[in-house]
Amino acid sequence: MDIATLFGIFSAFALVITAIKSGGGMSAFINIPSFMIVAGGTLGATFINYPLKDVLRVGGILKNAVFQKKSASQTWIPVFVDFANTARKEGVLSLEGTVSKMKDPFLKKGIQMAVDGLEPQSIKEILETEIEFIRSRHRLGVDIFATMGAFSPAMGLIGTLIGLVQMLQSMEDASTIGPAMAIALITTFYGAIMANLIFLPISGKLRTRSQEELLVKELMVEGVMAVTKGDNPRIVEQKLHAFLSPRLRKSTFKR
Amino acid sequence: MDIATLFGIFSAFALVITAIKSGGGMSAFINIPSFMIVAGGTLGATFINYPLKDVLRVGGILKNAVFQKKSASQTWIPVFVDFANTARKEGVLSLEGTVSKMKDPFLKKGIQMAVDGLEPQSIKEILETEIEFIRSRHRLGVDIFATMGAFSPAMGLIGTLIGLVQMLQSMEDASTIGPAMAIALITTFYGAIMANLIFLPISGKLRTRSQEELLVKELMVEGVMAVTKGDNPRIVEQKLHAFLSPRLRKSTFKR
Amino acid sequence: MDIATLFGIFSAFALVITAIKSGGGMSAFINIPSFMIVAGGTLGATFINYPLKDVLRVGGILKNAVFQKKSASQTWIPVFVDFANTARKEGVLSLEGTVSKMKDPFLKKGIQMAVDGLEPQSIKEILETEIEFIRSRHRLGVDIFATMGAFSPAMGLIGTLIGLVQMLQSMEDASTIGPAMAIALITTFYGAIMANLIFLPISGKLRTRSQEELLVKELMVEGVMAVTKGDNPRIVEQKLHAFLSPRLRKSTFKR
Amino acid sequence: MDIATLFGIFSAFALVITAIKSGGGMSAFINIPSFMIVAGGTLGATFINYPLKDVLRVGGILKNAVFQKKSASQTWIPVFVDFANTARKEGVLSLEGTVSKMKDPFLKKGIQMAVDGLEPQSIKEILETEIEFIRSRHRLGVDIFATMGAFSPAMGLIGTLIGLVQMLQSMEDASTIGPAMAIALITTFYGAIMANLIFLPISGKLRTRSQEELLVKELMVEGVMAVTKGDNPRIVEQKLHAFLSPRLRKSTFKR
Amino acid sequence: MDIATLFGIFSAFALVITAIKSGGGMSAFINIPSFMIVAGGTLGATFINYPLKDVLRVGGILKNAVFQKKSASQTWIPVFVDFANTARKEGVLSLEGTVSKMKDPFLKKGIQMAVDGLEPQSIKEILETEIEFIRSRHRLGVDIFATMGAFSPAMGLIGTLIGLVQMLQSMEDASTIGPAMAIALITTFYGAIMANLIFLPISGKLRTRSQEELLVKELMVEGVMAVTKGDNPRIVEQKLHAFLSPRLRKSTFKR
Repeated sequence: MDIATLFGIFSAFALVITAIKSGGGMSAFINIPSFMIVAGGTLGATFINYPLKDVLRVGGILKNAVFQKKSASQTWIPVFVDFANTARKEGVLSLEGTVSKMKDPFLKKGIQMAVDGLEPQSIKEILETEIEFIRSRHRLGVDIFATMGAFSPAMGLIGTLIGLVQMLQSMEDASTIGPAMAIALITTFYGAIMANLIFLPISGKLRTRSQEELLVKELMVEGVMAVTKGDNPRIVEQKLHAFLSPRLRKSTFKR
Repeated sequence: MDIATLFGIFSAFALVITAIKSGGGMSAFINIPSFMIVAGGTLGATFINYPLKDVLRVGGILKNAVFQKKSASQTWIPVFVDFANTARKEGVLSLEGTVSKMKDPFLKKGIQMAVDGLEPQSIKEILETEIEFIRSRHRLGVDIFATMGAFSPAMGLIGTLIGLVQMLQSMEDASTIGPAMAIALITTFYGAIMANLIFLPISGKLRTRSQEELLVKELMVEGVMAVTKGDNPRIVEQKLHAFLSPRLRKSTFKR
Repeated sequence: MDIATLFGIFSAFALVITAIKSGGGMSAFINIPSFMIVAGGTLGATFINYPLKDVLRVGGILKNAVFQKKSASQTWIPVFVDFANTARKEGVLSLEGTVSKMKDPFLKKGIQMAVDGLEPQSIKEILETEIEFIRSRHRLGVDIFATMGAFSPAMGLIGTLIGLVQMLQSMEDASTIGPAMAIALITTFYGAIMANLIFLPISGKLRTRSQEELLVKELMVEGVMAVTKGDNPRIVEQKLHAFLSPRLRKSTFKR
Repeated sequence: MDIATLFGIFSAFALVITAIKSGGGMSAFINIPSFMIVAGGTLGATFINYPLKDVLRVGGILKNAVFQKKSASQTWIPVFVDFANTARKEGVLSLEGTVSKMKDPFLKKGIQMAVDGLEPQSIKEILETEIEFIRSRHRLGVDIFATMGAFSPAMGLIGTLIGLVQMLQSMEDASTIGPAMAIALITTFYGAIMANLIFLPISGKLRTRSQEELLVKELMVEGVMAVTKGDNPRIVEQKLHAFLSPRLRKSTFKR
Repeated sequence: MDIATLFGIFSAFALVITAIKSGGGMSAFINIPSFMIVAGGTLGATFINYPLKDVLRVGGILKNAVFQKKSASQTWIPVFVDFANTARKEGVLSLEGTVSKMKDPFLKKGIQMAVDGLEPQSIKEILETEIEFIRSRHRLGVDIFATMGAFSPAMGLIGTLIGLVQMLQSMEDASTIGPAMAIALITTFYGAIMANLIFLPISGKLRTRSQEELLVKELMVEGVMAVTKGDNPRIVEQKLHAFLSPRLRKSTFKR
């Protein structure tokens, strides 16, 4: 579980609430119609922008991003060194037994194709097409939240303009100007909060997660290719180490 | 029909109108000259920017985006597996009979060229040129609405500046300042509404639709190539499955 | 002549003037020093940014964009089908006679090189280099107007700041504040008008024109290549139809 | 010397000063602390952003951009036609004598490598690597000024915020509010002037210059390649003409 | 040590503090809750956006950027000329002895692979994969600071909105309006300071550093390839000189 995400959301909101309480009561900052116009308007614009089925999948995307366990690149390198050893000694076909035990569907597909005897070039193309479409599915989640982060301040501005126009229309009593403007500004406040504490950071988080996942997938393609071509296990390791930061590289060979 | 689009537009406007009514009457927000300057100015800038014939096609583009039935990627995979089976058993020429029954003109062109005996490389180039130009025709619609979404807040600002200058010129009576400013702000309000509830979300919708359509086209190119080259139906399926999200992949073969 | 451009400029300005007149006289919106600072400052920044000779060519670029007749892609396809017929029957050299009658210099150069016996690959490289530099010359016009559209609101802001500082320095008489601020705001108004009704739409128009012209050029390269390689006229047509929207495709062959 | 640059800077400043004088005295617009905070803060941010040695080279870059004589693309074409003639008649080695007389170091290196007998492919790679690094050195100058143009309005805003906070803290005497706000606004004014009349146009100028220079270099690579390969002088000319606007193309051959 | 970074930060802050002191006391600009909301909110958004381990590594990245000694491109050229000499005279294997003495791990890996007899193409691919991942690790640091620079003004705006709403809610006593607004503006001030004097310049610095480092790495790849292929030392020098500005090129050969 990605504790930083929850910690970030919690601490940012805690700070805002503390700041509000230190200067007065919370009640001035709770305004249901303002919330409705910002949240509802943002949702409306998002529903126009994206197909219904994609917006509805947002919850699942989000859950994955926060709770799904990440598989670190470095844990895969000994696996491929192992495969390369087996493939060199007993042939690629001997990997058939291990395929059924694999849990990662991407790796499984890659090794299965190698066992089935597809040409290395075809395997590479199929896996890279798959990576390309994983990337575009990930981008959808990133884009939906970025779109929400772009529309919510605009909705905040629209709400504030409504409040200002109404206030300016009926300015008989000067003492009501202040509170009326305060209410008008709250929609801008909601728009800024939603964009900067929720939608934009989540969009960024999804992008970061996507990059990490695709890095592992790219390492796997390189690994499957090396195994299929019958590369020397030492060279397989060296090739895959290029995907890691130097301090994470641990060789299984003694030099 | 894409119900989310209509639902999005309806709900966003409903929220804005509710918000306005809850704080006073609608009348303060209806101002024909303000509407004219924002809508007319935006249209004017768009007519300078794009050829007449392209702007006039916008209505049709929009209708397509909302009402045209989408063809899902997954429905095409069994079709290509079928073609691959026929082509392997009876030769590519045997597909001639099915060509005339195809409804999708892109697929029809691709298979027809295969039947006509063009080289795979030429078929690929022609289909990819076609995809490239479909993409650029789609982009035109996306760009026209994005341009409108960029010009309408600017027109709103211009209208507000006109109102402010007129108000400031004749500030003898302090009691008229409020209502005059209210009217000046309405053009900014119209600009923000038009951009964020109409033009920008529609531009986004057209972009999303374009991506979906082009994905199906790219799958078709891959499929036509595989059929032309006489690939094994299992491999055709595997290649095309790379275009789908894993949960949509259903094999027609038993392993 | 591109009537949409003139109609767009005319209608946008007519709307702005109508809006101004409906709320008071025009006189408040005419201020020579404000106009000087926005127009002059924008020109100054543009002269720093671009070589003298390029800025001076802007008038010609503009005239072309509005008045030059466009050649539609579809009119060129029968021409190339014709060339392909002749080249197949009588050899590429037989096109020599038609070269001298061609008006389009790009097409003429392409066919001339084919007649001169250059290798297809060299012809393609030369024509694509030429397209690349046509594109960069077009981009210059687009960029100059986009730059003007970026500098004019900034100059408007500078003028308004000057007016505000002067007003604030001498605020003894409260009754002069309104008109002084009105004058200060007029530079912002000029900046917004120039950017959004003139410079940015024209920049967009030039970009659209450039794309249309380059599309025709790319079709010509494809056509010249097909003729040079001695492609079957039917295939030439099929290749070039990929550049057209389906509803513009009219075959000269009966199927 | 590029007179447009000097003319642009001079006229833009003249206009601003005229505008200021027409509305009051200059003294209100001269404020040393405001200038210090904008100029100093911008320099500070630039020194953090770029290595000391690069910022210090800015003066030289600037002098080059304004005073260095440009070599027009068209003047180089007859030179390469000449080289091609010599190389065809007497062999590439015969160019050795002319190498020592060349002034352009890039051209000299290219021809020298041809004379030394390097393979065309190697020559091309070396010259293109060189172009790539000339481009990245040019981009440094463009980026430094663009960075200054981005930081100076931000510093103007910071200065204005300082002034506003100080004014608001001590608002006992209403008559001091105006002048205090005027002073606060002057930093914003300085930031806008520096960005829009100095830094951003100069950044644009450097970019335009870089494009012109690199175009000449790309023409030289094409020319050196053609000479090395022993192309026919007519074809050399035709290849290089693709780099020019049609109205600059003058053939040295009679057709 | 990169003195310009420290000088830039010091001078920018000195200027801001001087400007503040010249107009009044510092006390008005110190407000712990305002600082908490901007710094805390920015950190919160950053923790949502990036994995915990990456944000925690920021300190180390920063230290490296300021204190790590840079290796200049030009110092590596004689090294590679030397290697090329040895490799030509005594074979690539003779470099084995020098490998163990190398300090740069990237160069060491490259030469080691050459000594191990890997094919040039494989060495190139491995080293370029490594460069690609160094680039993406560098980009992480650049992006984290850029994200902070984007969120801090937004947090400043949120704090100011809180202050304004509270002030407007309780406007009974007009004399408190000024100081209350001053406090509200301080969060905007903090946001602007943090973004423009700290986060954005540091992000820019990291990007500049990354480009310098990767340039050296690219030169090394080119050098290792030339040595592996057994290029003539003069040609090695010529190839590597393309990576340098002309005034840094010093040949070790006499012409």
